[in-house]
Amino acid sequence: MSAPTRPLVYNFFLMDTPSHISQGMWRHPESRATEYNDLGLWVELAQLAERHHFDAIFIADNFGMYPPVGGSSDVVIERALQFPISEPAMLVSAMAHATKDLGIVYTNSVLQQHPFAFARQMSTLDHLTNGRVGWNMVSSFNANGFRSMGMDGFVDHDERYTWLEEYVEVVYKLWEGSWADGAVLKDRDTGIYADPSKVRKINHLGKRYSVEGPHLSEPSPQRTPVLFQAGSSAAGLDFGARHTEGAFMISGKPEASASKIAKMKERAIALGRNANDIHFIEGLTFVVGSTEEEAQRKADELDEWADVTAQMAMSSASAGIDLTRFDPDEPLVNIIDQAQGLRGSIQLCIDNAPKGKVATVADLGRDNARQWRITGTPESIADRITEYAEAGVTGINIMSITVPGTFADFAEHVTPILKERGLMQREYQEGTLREKLFPGGGPRLGETHPARAYRDSHEYSH
Amino acid sequence: MSAPTRPLVYNFFLMDTPSHISQGMWRHPESRATEYNDLGLWVELAQLAERHHFDAIFIADNFGMYPPVGGSSDVVIERALQFPISEPAMLVSAMAHATKDLGIVYTNSVLQQHPFAFARQMSTLDHLTNGRVGWNMVSSFNANGFRSMGMDGFVDHDERYTWLEEYVEVVYKLWEGSWADGAVLKDRDTGIYADPSKVRKINHLGKRYSVEGPHLSEPSPQRTPVLFQAGSSAAGLDFGARHTEGAFMISGKPEASASKIAKMKERAIALGRNANDIHFIEGLTFVVGSTEEEAQRKADELDEWADVTAQMAMSSASAGIDLTRFDPDEPLVNIIDQAQGLRGSIQLCIDNAPKGKVATVADLGRDNARQWRITGTPESIADRITEYAEAGVTGINIMSITVPGTFADFAEHVTPILKERGLMQREYQEGTLREKLFPGGGPRLGETHPARAYRDSHEYSH
Repeated sequence: MSAPTRPLVYNFFLMDTPSHISQGMWRHPESRATEYNDLGLWVELAQLAERHHFDAIFIADNFGMYPPVGGSSDVVIERALQFPISEPAMLVSAMAHATKDLGIVYTNSVLQQHPFAFARQMSTLDHLTNGRVGWNMVSSFNANGFRSMGMDGFVDHDERYTWLEEYVEVVYKLWEGSWADGAVLKDRDTGIYADPSKVRKINHLGKRYSVEGPHLSEPSPQRTPVLFQAGSSAAGLDFGARHTEGAFMISGKPEASASKIAKMKERAIALGRNANDIHFIEGLTFVVGSTEEEAQRKADELDEWADVTAQMAMSSASAGIDLTRFDPDEPLVNIIDQAQGLRGSIQLCIDNAPKGKVATVADLGRDNARQWRITGTPESIADRITEYAEAGVTGINIMSITVPGTFADFAEHVTPILKERGLMQREYQEGTLREKLFPGGGPRLGETHPARAYRDSHEYSH
Repeated sequence: MSAPTRPLVYNFFLMDTPSHISQGMWRHPESRATEYNDLGLWVELAQLAERHHFDAIFIADNFGMYPPVGGSSDVVIERALQFPISEPAMLVSAMAHATKDLGIVYTNSVLQQHPFAFARQMSTLDHLTNGRVGWNMVSSFNANGFRSMGMDGFVDHDERYTWLEEYVEVVYKLWEGSWADGAVLKDRDTGIYADPSKVRKINHLGKRYSVEGPHLSEPSPQRTPVLFQAGSSAAGLDFGARHTEGAFMISGKPEASASKIAKMKERAIALGRNANDIHFIEGLTFVVGSTEEEAQRKADELDEWADVTAQMAMSSASAGIDLTRFDPDEPLVNIIDQAQGLRGSIQLCIDNAPKGKVATVADLGRDNARQWRITGTPESIADRITEYAEAGVTGINIMSITVPGTFADFAEHVTPILKERGLMQREYQEGTLREKLFPGGGPRLGETHPARAYRDSHEYSH
């Protein structure tokens, strides 16, 4: 087993909500997840991450309420299934002020903000953090969110990616094209702050957006924040191959990661990008013990707090069917064809069933939270991470079981081993988040990225 | 001269831009205004304000570029006339984490964010600050901003207030009506985070907005943030009388303040509110010296840095005419009738002209920055503030000449005198910003406020 040639990227992965992915864990006696609206918790997390040289804190979002389960939203509201949920961008400046090198990545969907307003928000934060922000680009799938933003309901899946394409085109024009290099003079003697001949309107006129400009912000350290994206559909993969610098996935097995990575790399190269332009970031969670037995005991103890009903409700949304209408003892093999969106998870659950036991719908509820879980000693966890690295994974998004327990355990016990083995950085690189993640490439998007087209591409006018 | 019965409210008034109101001052050797994108400056300002018991930091915004002057935006861009400009909401959490009692108020216009998204943003910040946020409600007047947000141009002035009325209706429904009191249980034993029977959709269907809900945030300490507004037109005054808890004005003279206050109080009372439901906040700036002569010398020195061209460009926008097309020596009496939006300022400039001298267009450019300026010793400044207090003013928004110089001088030299005279609080009240500004009234909007109508007013459904 050969070690990878460079350290992986490690992020804390969270959502600004009491219950993100491991449903029910907010009830655990050591969980502080219900303090999600307390700035102190977030600052503490950021400092913990930086103390141990994590690359970034990555805050997902779900802009709307999960779909009803069995015709009712009761389970969603009762079990706090990613609801209530606060706005992640509001956390950034406090965490940035308490740290120096940590990256801060957050989700903004096309639904949530107009691209002209969002472009200013991101530029503001890129300035305030000295170039440490990243954007998780999301095309929005939440029907309730659509209806709360004045739209009738869903936009067709592929159409959402067309929408996202126009959205990024607008923000690229603002970030990359509206202010030329050298536009800002800040000259106290002449009284000239900026050179008008180098600031231009973008005059974007597209299917959804018409945006005059100019961009309200002067160029920030990275201009375009580091771009992240998750999406495994054909349209999502194509968008990611074209635009993302960090592809986030939950594969559950190194082989599954390898196959996704191969597909995306091939597509990216076909689009003129380099194979190393993209980090491939696997979502995993960890239960750490000083022996395998202790780790397993901890995992079993945690399992007692899992909320199977809430987990099923969550799975229902991605399955595209209401899993609660099946008998909990129904064998999964009987329903796998109906649950298109969840085939992978169901297959894993079937594969993982103990010998002689048939995996059921109830098992799926329990198991779904375990598929991305690695239980073991720091050494065996490092071995598993090495397997992912060998499959082409270059980063890990650590999902929480308890907050901050999962992160604290990993930071305290696993990172020393990872650092010893060269699997994790021992100190931060200089510069912006982009320079830290892609050393030697400079603070701005590279020449192979499509945003390049919007630099110096049109007449200056204002 | 009798002292007022209670201390006034004092806020730092800024914009997240190099050049807010006193044009040209960013060039002053002691100015740090060009550090507006540095979090350190904002945290320092917040701590300075709190150390001296200021009530709040109030961050205005201008969502778009100032209109062209003489057909060109060159002056706007060159002189940094409120451009570039960053997003104020991004500053809040860092300042909140560095303080304990200071209020943080910022501007959000109806143009900038959809009310459903904005409602979540404000609730998030109200949570993170423990109830210390305020919202400056703005109906947007910036044509460039409109065109950058997909609209063809201006919306008619009164129509903008109709728009703002619907906007606040939506956010009141979300803040006040979507989650009933007692909805949040966070019960670790039963696993019930929230009671579904107490969380409801709002199903708003109006002229501009259709919003399903429910609100994505659980109730924050104040629910509705403290509401601020500036607006002196008939529609603006009517809106303010109905909704605001802090009316911001720049009158330039106590008598002018008194007349505005009387009008708004009368209207508020007619609408069923109490005379004391609204703070009347005058915008002023100060030059402080240990003697009148020293203060005047400092004022004269500051004047040397004023950018008259930029000041004229700014005045042109509010005048509604291009002031640069007049001969600088043109007497103001000849143009006052053409400059509707600037009549008050022009009249003040004419009134303030030294005996025997005719006020000119060029004087307006210089003077406009001085009309809200009080120059003197701490004692004489306290006298002037007392005059405003006797005219009914209950708060001062301190505008900057230099940043942080104006604030630091006032904090260090004037606040001790104000505290001695009972004109300024010596310590913070307990509780939320609303409880600090309106002691004894509780954290939430009072019974006379129109938002009251949206509590418990419709069927629970989700």
